[in-house]
Amino acid sequence: MTTDNRPDSYTLVISCPDRVGVVAAVSQFLAERGGSLVESNHHTDLEQNWFYMRNVISAAGLSVNEEAFSDEFAPLATEFAMEWQLRPSSRRERVVIMASHASHCLSDILHRWQSGDLACDIPCVISNHENLRSMVEWHGIPFHHVPVPKEDKAAAFAEVERIVERHRGETIVLARYMQIIPPALCEGYVGRLINIHHSFLPSFIGANPYQKAYDRGVKLIGATCHYVTEDLDEGPIIEQDVIRVNHSCSKDDMVRLGRDVEQSVLSRGLRYHLEDRVIVRGNKTVVFS
Amino acid sequence: MTTDNRPDSYTLVISCPDRVGVVAAVSQFLAERGGSLVESNHHTDLEQNWFYMRNVISAAGLSVNEEAFSDEFAPLATEFAMEWQLRPSSRRERVVIMASHASHCLSDILHRWQSGDLACDIPCVISNHENLRSMVEWHGIPFHHVPVPKEDKAAAFAEVERIVERHRGETIVLARYMQIIPPALCEGYVGRLINIHHSFLPSFIGANPYQKAYDRGVKLIGATCHYVTEDLDEGPIIEQDVIRVNHSCSKDDMVRLGRDVEQSVLSRGLRYHLEDRVIVRGNKTVVFS
Amino acid sequence: MTTDNRPDSYTLVISCPDRVGVVAAVSQFLAERGGSLVESNHHTDLEQNWFYMRNVISAAGLSVNEEAFSDEFAPLATEFAMEWQLRPSSRRERVVIMASHASHCLSDILHRWQSGDLACDIPCVISNHENLRSMVEWHGIPFHHVPVPKEDKAAAFAEVERIVERHRGETIVLARYMQIIPPALCEGYVGRLINIHHSFLPSFIGANPYQKAYDRGVKLIGATCHYVTEDLDEGPIIEQDVIRVNHSCSKDDMVRLGRDVEQSVLSRGLRYHLEDRVIVRGNKTVVFS
Amino acid sequence: MTTDNRPDSYTLVISCPDRVGVVAAVSQFLAERGGSLVESNHHTDLEQNWFYMRNVISAAGLSVNEEAFSDEFAPLATEFAMEWQLRPSSRRERVVIMASHASHCLSDILHRWQSGDLACDIPCVISNHENLRSMVEWHGIPFHHVPVPKEDKAAAFAEVERIVERHRGETIVLARYMQIIPPALCEGYVGRLINIHHSFLPSFIGANPYQKAYDRGVKLIGATCHYVTEDLDEGPIIEQDVIRVNHSCSKDDMVRLGRDVEQSVLSRGLRYHLEDRVIVRGNKTVVFS
Repeated sequence: MTTDNRPDSYTLVISCPDRVGVVAAVSQFLAERGGSLVESNHHTDLEQNWFYMRNVISAAGLSVNEEAFSDEFAPLATEFAMEWQLRPSSRRERVVIMASHASHCLSDILHRWQSGDLACDIPCVISNHENLRSMVEWHGIPFHHVPVPKEDKAAAFAEVERIVERHRGETIVLARYMQIIPPALCEGYVGRLINIHHSFLPSFIGANPYQKAYDRGVKLIGATCHYVTEDLDEGPIIEQDVIRVNHSCSKDDMVRLGRDVEQSVLSRGLRYHLEDRVIVRGNKTVVFS
Repeated sequence: MTTDNRPDSYTLVISCPDRVGVVAAVSQFLAERGGSLVESNHHTDLEQNWFYMRNVISAAGLSVNEEAFSDEFAPLATEFAMEWQLRPSSRRERVVIMASHASHCLSDILHRWQSGDLACDIPCVISNHENLRSMVEWHGIPFHHVPVPKEDKAAAFAEVERIVERHRGETIVLARYMQIIPPALCEGYVGRLINIHHSFLPSFIGANPYQKAYDRGVKLIGATCHYVTEDLDEGPIIEQDVIRVNHSCSKDDMVRLGRDVEQSVLSRGLRYHLEDRVIVRGNKTVVFS
Repeated sequence: MTTDNRPDSYTLVISCPDRVGVVAAVSQFLAERGGSLVESNHHTDLEQNWFYMRNVISAAGLSVNEEAFSDEFAPLATEFAMEWQLRPSSRRERVVIMASHASHCLSDILHRWQSGDLACDIPCVISNHENLRSMVEWHGIPFHHVPVPKEDKAAAFAEVERIVERHRGETIVLARYMQIIPPALCEGYVGRLINIHHSFLPSFIGANPYQKAYDRGVKLIGATCHYVTEDLDEGPIIEQDVIRVNHSCSKDDMVRLGRDVEQSVLSRGLRYHLEDRVIVRGNKTVVFS
Repeated sequence: MTTDNRPDSYTLVISCPDRVGVVAAVSQFLAERGGSLVESNHHTDLEQNWFYMRNVISAAGLSVNEEAFSDEFAPLATEFAMEWQLRPSSRRERVVIMASHASHCLSDILHRWQSGDLACDIPCVISNHENLRSMVEWHGIPFHHVPVPKEDKAAAFAEVERIVERHRGETIVLARYMQIIPPALCEGYVGRLINIHHSFLPSFIGANPYQKAYDRGVKLIGATCHYVTEDLDEGPIIEQDVIRVNHSCSKDDMVRLGRDVEQSVLSRGLRYHLEDRVIVRGNKTVVFS
């Protein structure tokens, strides 16, 4: 976490059992401290009786700093059994990108980051190939080559984990990283390990989704951005999109068209995550997009 | 307005100058009366310093009825200079549909209404042609034929207005009604007179938009649902959508493809209006879709 | 098959092994008989080495009638091992619609048919429920109620088949017909039995796709129009589309939103079929849309 | 024009007055020389009585080389009054990119080019700013800074033209180049000067389209890829697309969302152009996508 300077705003994300008075309590708390709302999103899951809330609070009129806010909010959070998080806009998430051979998702993320469009720090990129080193280093970002040999994947992922920790990575993005992440790493980064799957899940789970889509003769192909869990391709979905194909598309055409969907879905999903717009509960997400 | 029975919920819509404490005041008010939130949407227009809010409140636990709610809410509304509206779910909007020769938008609305998908009453349909009478009457809805002769449009629209009033119409929907609405009628139904324009406004304002789109060689055509004002095709936009076309589409193909967009855009726009999801301010809308 | 009068055009659809000279031979054949092309679509499947072609030929300048065309074309078709079909625009396909309780797809098809937007005859509608009788009969179309009791489905489908035959039905459309079609009927109408499945196949095969989509937390839901084969939900796909959903959508909202996609996908798929734009080979389709 | 080696295929593009026998003549010509069709697209404009055709012909079985093909085809072209063009797949278009301050379109094109996804040569990039030099040069492409001072734009564009000519540029792409192209340059590159306009033309012609879209309250914003003519923003449209926005989007949000549409529309339009899929006639295009 990097604290650049005084924040413009704070983002307060809450989820808790639904109950009359929770909005009143939170908004009363904010109003008493001069907190004006830049953006506010609510969701009540009537089936699960669960409440979700995201508030962006202007720092300008706020009478308390982050520490005081947290201290004073804690009793209220306890009363309503809230899970909650407060992030000052000045604290940028540290995002480690992992990639393999394909460059499109990585290139897209790096360009957005460089042009100030993605508010995060990228302390390093890790790849099991060497081919993207020059692109990454041109952006001024350290590149780590960690090969993943079939006979010793455990050692490779131990090295990956050490690198992420050394760089104090908070979120890991798999930008078409083509190795299966071991359960230990999944567990260590629950809700902070983001993948782009090159199909419209749950269609075409597993390897070679474009070949499967081609063989099935579907008329749309898609991509899915999701949090990674131990259950391969079954984690909570953050974002999806599709693109039209037809009989004239070869499998290679699908791969090419799919790349555009993959990178736009991944960048949208990552943005939602970075702006604390995603709340995971069970295997589903609330996304205040 | 029809009151069927006890409502399931109330929809409270508010807009007012933005100010610290407004959410706290409203949510406190609701919590004190046992009002649990089924859905809640907020929007702060930072440029205009204006605040918009829509709350759907479960009637189940509410300790007050509609009248008491309104009486008690009034002082708070005054304090914050609110424009506000409270609608019990049992009070269905009375919607008069106006159509001309084309049947697709009317047919779509009638089917949605009949299958319980659009929560409104349709006291009558008015047309300047006779050809849709049978379809309307089959749905059990009165049909009024009001021709609009070139030489005496004023009398025709006076008759239209009488019919709407006699049926206690609250909202008027122009479902491809091909006559220009006179200013007096526009003024009488500000924010309650809905049109579907067969182009992606502001492109191709005025007559024959499909011909214009064909001549310009655009690659997408669209439709726009908007509130009618005296400034033709310039009223606040509620909803828009587009569909892809190409060089192989004749003007007639565009007309045919456009019909599907028109009816889906109109039905979505009408639904937003009926569910009090649309708030107009100036020439723009907030739509809590 | 109904022949109203002299056709405006003929549609010639061909598929055969790909070979140099096939286009030359067909276009030479047409040119020699004064056939000017209104529309022409080609596709070469390089992987399968198979060629597909659809020509719409103006009848105006054509020097031969349908019978002579067919007789003279036969030797050429044999030479190139073509599967082929010639349809005069005056010969409208006879389409039997089957429905259950849900009205949206049926209502949409009937309205398009009635307004001249779908060029086919609808000799009758068959349903296992009574609730849609009035809607069908208002359109002037015979309605047959064929209940499908659990204990004797075979007799019910024998009755269905008799009705279709008696009405000389050529194509059967399952407009949200909620019974599984027995293999015998599938075999009898290969490539002429069209279903709309309420999911984006191959996701959520089988019953209750919206519940499954809700449980999985997908961000788009869809519908699939496909030819029915004995392998449930596995037949050749004609058309698909999707619509965006999010966490605020209940399962019922998904059902409602899905209806719009279902009816638009079905009507597009049916149109492609009626205009002889679909060619099935194996389990895939070429759709010259 | 660069000729790398022997081509895999030839692309033959034809347009001419429509007439019985044109397809027969062309396909006969190809068949006699062993030309098998990889892809073939036809379009008859019935209103204009004009015919368009694009054939991709495998070079493998072809008995003639490019020169012989052209020589032998010329009489046939004359007979049917064809405009035509033959391009071997080995001849890559030389594309000069022009940009200003914004990097997203340029970055996208350069990445696609570098990864082999766009089949063209990029001999240089020209900009009126310096900020993109490093990005361009990292790709190994010469960067020319040509400032455009208000007081002497003519000299600047004379310099631009010299640079393009020196690099033997055939097509010029304005990748968010923010200066108006003088008529002389437009005339010199008719059908070879491509622009991306940041609105859904013909909406919001001219400067600041996002501000205009914001002020009008539209629910979709878009981008348009078109050939540049002397009539600003009025040239033949190649490709368009849109993205959904709503009341919560500030003008800056629209700019950010619009960037994604701009770059995807430009890259699609450019691809169509490079693959000779676009035929301009009058102010409209046929795009065999």
